[in-house]
Amino acid sequence: MSIVVVGSVALDTVETPFGKRENALGGAATYFSTAASLYTQVQLVGVVGDDFPAEHVDFLASRGVDLKGLQRRPGQTFRWAGRYDYDNINNAQTLDTQLGLFASFDPQLPEDYRSADCVFLANIDPVLQLKVLEQVRQPKLKVLDSMNFWITSNKARLSEVISKVDVLLLNEGEALQYGETFSLVSAARKLLELGPKVVLAKKGEYGAALFADATYFFAPAYPLEKVVDPTGAGDTFAAGFLGYLAREGDYSLAAMKRAVIHGSTVASFTIEDYSIDRLRSLTMVDIERRVEHFKHFTDVQGEAVFETLRLQPAPSA
Amino acid sequence: MSIVVVGSVALDTVETPFGKRENALGGAATYFSTAASLYTQVQLVGVVGDDFPAEHVDFLASRGVDLKGLQRRPGQTFRWAGRYDYDNINNAQTLDTQLGLFASFDPQLPEDYRSADCVFLANIDPVLQLKVLEQVRQPKLKVLDSMNFWITSNKARLSEVISKVDVLLLNEGEALQYGETFSLVSAARKLLELGPKVVLAKKGEYGAALFADATYFFAPAYPLEKVVDPTGAGDTFAAGFLGYLAREGDYSLAAMKRAVIHGSTVASFTIEDYSIDRLRSLTMVDIERRVEHFKHFTDVQGEAVFETLRLQPAPSA
Repeated sequence: MSIVVVGSVALDTVETPFGKRENALGGAATYFSTAASLYTQVQLVGVVGDDFPAEHVDFLASRGVDLKGLQRRPGQTFRWAGRYDYDNINNAQTLDTQLGLFASFDPQLPEDYRSADCVFLANIDPVLQLKVLEQVRQPKLKVLDSMNFWITSNKARLSEVISKVDVLLLNEGEALQYGETFSLVSAARKLLELGPKVVLAKKGEYGAALFADATYFFAPAYPLEKVVDPTGAGDTFAAGFLGYLAREGDYSLAAMKRAVIHGSTVASFTIEDYSIDRLRSLTMVDIERRVEHFKHFTDVQGEAVFETLRLQPAPSA
Repeated sequence: MSIVVVGSVALDTVETPFGKRENALGGAATYFSTAASLYTQVQLVGVVGDDFPAEHVDFLASRGVDLKGLQRRPGQTFRWAGRYDYDNINNAQTLDTQLGLFASFDPQLPEDYRSADCVFLANIDPVLQLKVLEQVRQPKLKVLDSMNFWITSNKARLSEVISKVDVLLLNEGEALQYGETFSLVSAARKLLELGPKVVLAKKGEYGAALFADATYFFAPAYPLEKVVDPTGAGDTFAAGFLGYLAREGDYSLAAMKRAVIHGSTVASFTIEDYSIDRLRSLTMVDIERRVEHFKHFTDVQGEAVFETLRLQPAPSA
């Protein structure tokens, strides 16, 4: 089963309390494609400039990502600079945004992308997200991500896209902002009333909560000893979630619960290193091992599963 | 199975964005006793002054709480005033503390308390907590709570108490403060090295995490539409946790996982109203119903349990 992803391919400069990386490979569509390609065929739609290193294109191609939809034009690639601090490890502080070619991005789906099984609309202008939905035929699952900027600047158009998708992914704070409430349950209710079958609220280190008509499902984040760079956690959460569903070809709520665990798992690897570096060597065996751990984290019934997760020895660093 | 609780019995003034209550019944030992008495026999050790309304004593007696250890002396009852805001709903801002008789509190266990099955050392001076431990015979489970104040002012003595108990309960922020780290896994490791078998980190609206040698277990908080007053959430979490274990007479790690769910459940009721008001009418039937819901919140395996939790209709208020 194939997934079309539409979103940013970028060069990121990221600062954390532990270090800094300049002009590293980034962007929502990059993170998503890199991780989702472990599960299934990914077709990418985005734009980069002539400053975009060929090695990054080669890397995505080496993962089997279909790059027919990646526009390469004269000009500057989207650049983002952000910072994480101890008191905002779950949400980056944006230091600089240079849209470059992304300012005039007009997503065009190659003919064979249009019959993809799944569509992931990464965080871009809701007007463009609507244009993508007009180009796809009958995908089995449409998943939407967005951000606070669009809630503030174009809530009407954002609401229109939300009404046309099956699953809405948002950070917890963004869901609360949309709902103008401090209760995530109330926010989820309002968002579900717009039409999506499922609202998935990402809570960073506190996990993720899935809301549907009659369902509340919660998955904690994988407990990590060390977080290096949270960039891409949300996009690779989406990749594990949607990648699992597409691979299984099962879009039921039951499958979505397992998919949330895959999302949390993939995100947990992403943040262990800068950029997509941890994902380069990540295998499905690594993923399945952590997915197994997850079963025990919240398994109330089990009587004999306590010895399965020994705390890792303290890192020497 | 009986539980001895040693801690504050207080009169609280609480402000939230939604309202204010003055001189309401409060205190860690009060919250704990009120909730734990739904599970098992509770023996309370504390002190109140001649300003303490007789109706509060009558209420605790009506719950079957053994009050032989409640000292009643001339002087002022411990008074606490705090405030919760949108940006600190999980942690109160203390506006005023009047220790009154609590400043000279010297916990004395009546003879028949000394052979209690369980001891809950609510948040008081670790020097007093050590005095309590000297007075009990061979309890099957010793559970300790504390707070940031003692980490700052008397970490040596606090560490000594931690080394003598089976279960340490702390807020997530306090655990991080004790461990001088931003990783809860690292903090839990340091705390476990002091001697307790289990470290339970309370994360407020984000749930609770249990750490033991080979175990990580996580329970989300119950998703609530409306939170009125978070005061007492931690103490009644302890009450549900310890109450369940004492009632079952099972102190295994497997039982502790179920006990964490009971703790989260009882706390979820506490915060639905001011003071102990919601607990007054709370029944074990109410508790068991939410405990059932919890099983579905994190049940990845189940295929057919999605229709069990319908989102509550929006409150008219």
